[in-house]
Amino acid sequence: MAYENTVIKDRLVKLREKMAQEGIDYYMMPTSDFHNSEYSADFFKVREYFCGFDGSNGTLVVSKDFAGMWTDGRYFIQAENQMKGTGVDLYKMMEPGVPTISEFLSKNMKEGEVLGFDGRVISTSIGLDLEEKLAKIKASFKIDKDLADDVWTDRPALPCHDMYVLSDELCGKSYKEKLSDVRKKMEEYGTKAHLLSKLDDIMWLTNLRGNDVECNPVALSYAYITMDEFILFVQEKEVTAEVKAYCDKVGIELKDYHELTAFLKDVKFEGDVLYDKRNTNFLTFKTLSEKAKEAGVELKNKDNPTELMKAIKNDTEIKNIREVYLKDSAKLTEFIYWVKTNVGKIPMTEYTAAMKLDGMRAQIPGFIELSFPTISAYNANAAMAHYEATEDNAAEVKAQGMLLVDSGATYMGGTTDVTRTIVVGEISDEIKKHYTATVCGMLQLGAAKFLEGCTGRNLDPLARGPLWDIDIDYNHGTGHGIGYMLNVHEGPHSIRWRYTPNAPEAVLEPGMIVSDEPGVYIEGSHGIRIENIVEVVKDTKNSYGQFLRLQHLTYVPIDLEAIDKKYMKPEQVKLLNDYHKAVYERILPLIEDEDVKAWLKEATREI
Amino acid sequence: MAYENTVIKDRLVKLREKMAQEGIDYYMMPTSDFHNSEYSADFFKVREYFCGFDGSNGTLVVSKDFAGMWTDGRYFIQAENQMKGTGVDLYKMMEPGVPTISEFLSKNMKEGEVLGFDGRVISTSIGLDLEEKLAKIKASFKIDKDLADDVWTDRPALPCHDMYVLSDELCGKSYKEKLSDVRKKMEEYGTKAHLLSKLDDIMWLTNLRGNDVECNPVALSYAYITMDEFILFVQEKEVTAEVKAYCDKVGIELKDYHELTAFLKDVKFEGDVLYDKRNTNFLTFKTLSEKAKEAGVELKNKDNPTELMKAIKNDTEIKNIREVYLKDSAKLTEFIYWVKTNVGKIPMTEYTAAMKLDGMRAQIPGFIELSFPTISAYNANAAMAHYEATEDNAAEVKAQGMLLVDSGATYMGGTTDVTRTIVVGEISDEIKKHYTATVCGMLQLGAAKFLEGCTGRNLDPLARGPLWDIDIDYNHGTGHGIGYMLNVHEGPHSIRWRYTPNAPEAVLEPGMIVSDEPGVYIEGSHGIRIENIVEVVKDTKNSYGQFLRLQHLTYVPIDLEAIDKKYMKPEQVKLLNDYHKAVYERILPLIEDEDVKAWLKEATREI
Repeated sequence: MAYENTVIKDRLVKLREKMAQEGIDYYMMPTSDFHNSEYSADFFKVREYFCGFDGSNGTLVVSKDFAGMWTDGRYFIQAENQMKGTGVDLYKMMEPGVPTISEFLSKNMKEGEVLGFDGRVISTSIGLDLEEKLAKIKASFKIDKDLADDVWTDRPALPCHDMYVLSDELCGKSYKEKLSDVRKKMEEYGTKAHLLSKLDDIMWLTNLRGNDVECNPVALSYAYITMDEFILFVQEKEVTAEVKAYCDKVGIELKDYHELTAFLKDVKFEGDVLYDKRNTNFLTFKTLSEKAKEAGVELKNKDNPTELMKAIKNDTEIKNIREVYLKDSAKLTEFIYWVKTNVGKIPMTEYTAAMKLDGMRAQIPGFIELSFPTISAYNANAAMAHYEATEDNAAEVKAQGMLLVDSGATYMGGTTDVTRTIVVGEISDEIKKHYTATVCGMLQLGAAKFLEGCTGRNLDPLARGPLWDIDIDYNHGTGHGIGYMLNVHEGPHSIRWRYTPNAPEAVLEPGMIVSDEPGVYIEGSHGIRIENIVEVVKDTKNSYGQFLRLQHLTYVPIDLEAIDKKYMKPEQVKLLNDYHKAVYERILPLIEDEDVKAWLKEATREI
Repeated sequence: MAYENTVIKDRLVKLREKMAQEGIDYYMMPTSDFHNSEYSADFFKVREYFCGFDGSNGTLVVSKDFAGMWTDGRYFIQAENQMKGTGVDLYKMMEPGVPTISEFLSKNMKEGEVLGFDGRVISTSIGLDLEEKLAKIKASFKIDKDLADDVWTDRPALPCHDMYVLSDELCGKSYKEKLSDVRKKMEEYGTKAHLLSKLDDIMWLTNLRGNDVECNPVALSYAYITMDEFILFVQEKEVTAEVKAYCDKVGIELKDYHELTAFLKDVKFEGDVLYDKRNTNFLTFKTLSEKAKEAGVELKNKDNPTELMKAIKNDTEIKNIREVYLKDSAKLTEFIYWVKTNVGKIPMTEYTAAMKLDGMRAQIPGFIELSFPTISAYNANAAMAHYEATEDNAAEVKAQGMLLVDSGATYMGGTTDVTRTIVVGEISDEIKKHYTATVCGMLQLGAAKFLEGCTGRNLDPLARGPLWDIDIDYNHGTGHGIGYMLNVHEGPHSIRWRYTPNAPEAVLEPGMIVSDEPGVYIEGSHGIRIENIVEVVKDTKNSYGQFLRLQHLTYVPIDLEAIDKKYMKPEQVKLLNDYHKAVYERILPLIEDEDVKAWLKEATREI
């Protein structure tokens, strides 16, 4: 008899009972928190609870006699294994003949039937698409019920951790100044109110921080802004006495996180309302739009003004970021030394190496948390885009090949992100060729000088050029923005090359910081990524405009054991030597151990 | 007493009489033919006739008691001079406080008043904007009257020159094959009819050519395409016996050029209609849309399918283009030799130098016409974007400084475009620095290797980089497409860097050809532009995608007298030496004169 996963089957039985009680024919469970955060807390893992699949992308749809889970190509094998015996069918997204969820529902739902989902975990664009499709077949939906709440009896609590206040000195700009800038933008757009749902934007604006999302120092929150009020919706328990005193002092009115919907149902709009469709969940959007219709005002969909303001770091932020990056660079340099001197001598796995690095970072004064789970991937594992070493599956790091380590942390004074691929033993000439080209790409982009007005699409080929020249590409962007004591990924700018019709691009502006991370990934063999963070700084200004250039924030040696000059142009050699000279000068004062100092000198020698 | 231009004043009196007769309160005269061609024939110079201003951009608006002419910053001084004593006011476009034409009309026209213009010389987007504005103030318009016709008694005739047929062998693809491709696209778009107004597209599709627009080998024409008919509207007198026989043979139905509007008023649409808003004049658009409304079908605004098809040159075209570019390059090389050996010895002006070059080109077998009026600009004149040397104003070319020559021709087998800046005497070190950077930019872009999917915005900084590095930019695009025995400027691709939200970009595809023309323009001092034409060719194809690269079509020496190695990176020196080696090898066999041969060897020497 085939294996049956009775745990999951029982859960689905209970879900279906609940659905019947609520008059819901199909129930949909995607993968998101209420704010479309990069990481979802356990509280939100409803889909995993009801089908067993725990990948980072998947949507489960359940009806009386059907259960199907949609996921993408990264997870077909994992999903099949994890859902064995559950009776849940796997729908392979983007495969020929496989319907999308909205196609499936359009075809299978009958007139008068009801689709249910928690409208807080569905994006507005997906919600609107479903609304349109359901209207065509005269089906309807219920979006205000989270059915898991009753069925999932041992559900983890909604994350709820103490918030804290950052001083104006640390932020470089007070909440009041920032709010005044936001209100100017609201006026410019002809709006009188603004609903802000994006957590890092709310944190940036209020100079508050929280701890409700893994690796993102943010509190679950919403903000409602008018020309004379600012209401912050957060869980009451998160508001420490310090936070309360600060809010009272600066004029932030506090309401409970769960009151937002009720509040919006009662609010009186005195003019058009600004919101950002990309970052507003469907329930909030629907509540807003009903209210706006009632009040005869318009909902204006614009990028949150805070997004661009947050991306352009002020002088204080930049000063602190530069310092923090030097400390973080010095620590990573010490880690590289540790790996190189210990590999083959002590037991070392991808996992233990990552633990070692995380522990070293935690010793840096002002350390708050990792900015993302450290990626530590040995040899062929480094070629896998979504490889994650756990304690159990981690490969042993031997004195052969390379270890790719992508890591970073948030400190008082900044959030870091850096990747080095460390030679731990013999490597082939092919690897040296790939490594050298990757380094040349990183350095070429890092040395870019350009006119204000350029976007990442203009600059991306500088990083890819040396790889394209040897018939290689990498299937990811070259660069993303990074927050200030905030999320390690932020917009609106990026460094990518592909053209997408009508996709907005953000111009690179002085004060922005962005990653510069080309790579080579050869399946079954090796993976290389070299990532520095660079800042956009002003150069000459003349009648042609304002020239800008990129300037490194990261100062960690490039592994010369993997560099072969024969693959470099003379000016690329110069870029590398110049960079290494700067690494040595800036990092040396931060390193105490004499052995590491001696090694650093050698590791940054002129070639 | 102030000077009065009685000639213009009398013309305006007659125009106003005509306006009164027709019940027109305001009459508007822009600068365009019926097809928005780059060059307008004398027949279309109505604005110039009624106000005296003959610049390339201007719109005249006349009412009973007002006459105003709108033009841009290039022409403020010229317009003021030319319109002196005419009573016509100058409206300086884009200057603070100056209304646009539609703002002016919105403010000054009264309810019930009528705006008149020839709807064939107004673009659809301008027409629609005016329509909306006039509706708001309850004014209306008449678009089917060309009032100049009656008033301008000695008006030049509409251009009307013999058309001719290109063989399928010369075109590489028959009209029938091309038509079949167009019909496939029409089907893809769900349309049953397609109105084509763009002259070079019509010529490309039919393998016909004409001579109605200066430097563009095109006939004034429209094409109406359905799934079983192809109607070509051309002036009857242009249809030679050869053209008639060809059309009969391939199934092109001929109607008179002037019958289009009447035809469209009678036509029966059997489905949606494809048209390209950018290239359809307002009268045609209005006729089409009324008819579509009547028939209950939709007008679908899409880029003409012919635009992209035309841009991707087929193997025959590429083969012929390569040959033609070599011949053209050899002739320009001979010209450079002539300039260098004769300057300071014989009388030479910008104008006579251009005449010399034009005459030399005309000797190349297969020469048809210049592809644009040759630009010949000496020293500081070369810094002016719109400088045009005429016989009267041309500067004398002395044995000092540089002569910039931008020129090209259409031959049986291709259309060329090339710019060289020729050293004719002493030049400063600053000029050498600028010249060297310009050459490096041209060569760097010309050596680009990239993945299919790139657009010109990804590549433009390769050309600008060496100039940006020395705080210099140029205020024009880096590259434009070029027709095959057609217009010297064609889309859809280009090489530009600036981001314009929602502006479509065309991906660079194998078979496209594009110019590569960086420059430096220092007002009052010097102007440098170096332009090669390059083709997009396939390189490696692997799991990352199809790699492409650029390859030179132009092989003309770069002036080594203006190159200083101290301003070059080693690989830029290599690019220049490699290019010069190719120039020597390819051009030498085409040159007969022993002195030129000897000079060529020296001019392409390794540095």
